[in-house]
Amino acid sequence: MTYDVIDPALDLVLERDIDVPPELVWRCWTEPQHLMQWFTPKPYETVDAEMDVRPGGIFRVVMRSPEGEDMDQGAGCYLEVVTNRRLVWTGALGPGFRPTDGDFPFTAIITMEPSASGTRYRAVAVHGSPELKARHEEMGFHDGWGAALDQLIELAKTL
Amino acid sequence: MTYDVIDPALDLVLERDIDVPPELVWRCWTEPQHLMQWFTPKPYETVDAEMDVRPGGIFRVVMRSPEGEDMDQGAGCYLEVVTNRRLVWTGALGPGFRPTDGDFPFTAIITMEPSASGTRYRAVAVHGSPELKARHEEMGFHDGWGAALDQLIELAKTL
Repeated sequence: MTYDVIDPALDLVLERDIDVPPELVWRCWTEPQHLMQWFTPKPYETVDAEMDVRPGGIFRVVMRSPEGEDMDQGAGCYLEVVTNRRLVWTGALGPGFRPTDGDFPFTAIITMEPSASGTRYRAVAVHGSPELKARHEEMGFHDGWGAALDQLIELAKTL
Repeated sequence: MTYDVIDPALDLVLERDIDVPPELVWRCWTEPQHLMQWFTPKPYETVDAEMDVRPGGIFRVVMRSPEGEDMDQGAGCYLEVVTNRRLVWTGALGPGFRPTDGDFPFTAIITMEPSASGTRYRAVAVHGSPELKARHEEMGFHDGWGAALDQLIELAKTL
């Protein structure tokens, strides 16, 4: 897709060859009972996930801290849904594409291409300003999304 | 689409039966040389339109006031593209689905259904808060979008 041009000043990227096929990565991303098992790096947990996987459909998760505090991430929505290949969602729009007023909007572009090892996995977080990118990086994007991907792989191997 | 549930507290709606077929309405909405002729109620003009009509593609127009002042509306993007039936775009995301930092985001859902007269035309402006809806209404949503639709119909009849 020509629109997947990464802007290093605004985007954060996690890219890795992983040894599970795209079809299982897709299931981990699109089935709530699976997503809840890997989406949040331990010791945090995902305790609820509302997912209507089609453009304009809701994507909403609730995370729980080790202290038991629940953090509702607010309702985002899906933008592009290409089975086993590409999933795009954003926090800038809620269900029905309604603009949200969250103070930390980003769009996530997840792609999974078949590769020799299994899948060339790429997650891009797309921000509207260098400040929001920096804030996401300071929140631990690379460690956090990387640890979550490790959990996804572990789960996928059991499916 | 189940997501097209209108929320009267947040949405503005223009709905009208018009006597041109959906195919011509679609062309007026998706071909820049046509859109520039009707999109802005006279005596304002649309003097530039950048349109890549696919999900994630740019939608950007520049309007000119009667005094000759150009107003770049900023780059939005398309979200759903169903030829001759449905066009969804937003100012909350720019090309590539990148969140924007505009202070007046809304999503527009344009539908055109075949009807006895020609087309059942509906334009819905979807806002994130009652304040933004009120602001859009005060800016003259109904008169403005209605006058633009009159111009669209007039143009469509010449195509």
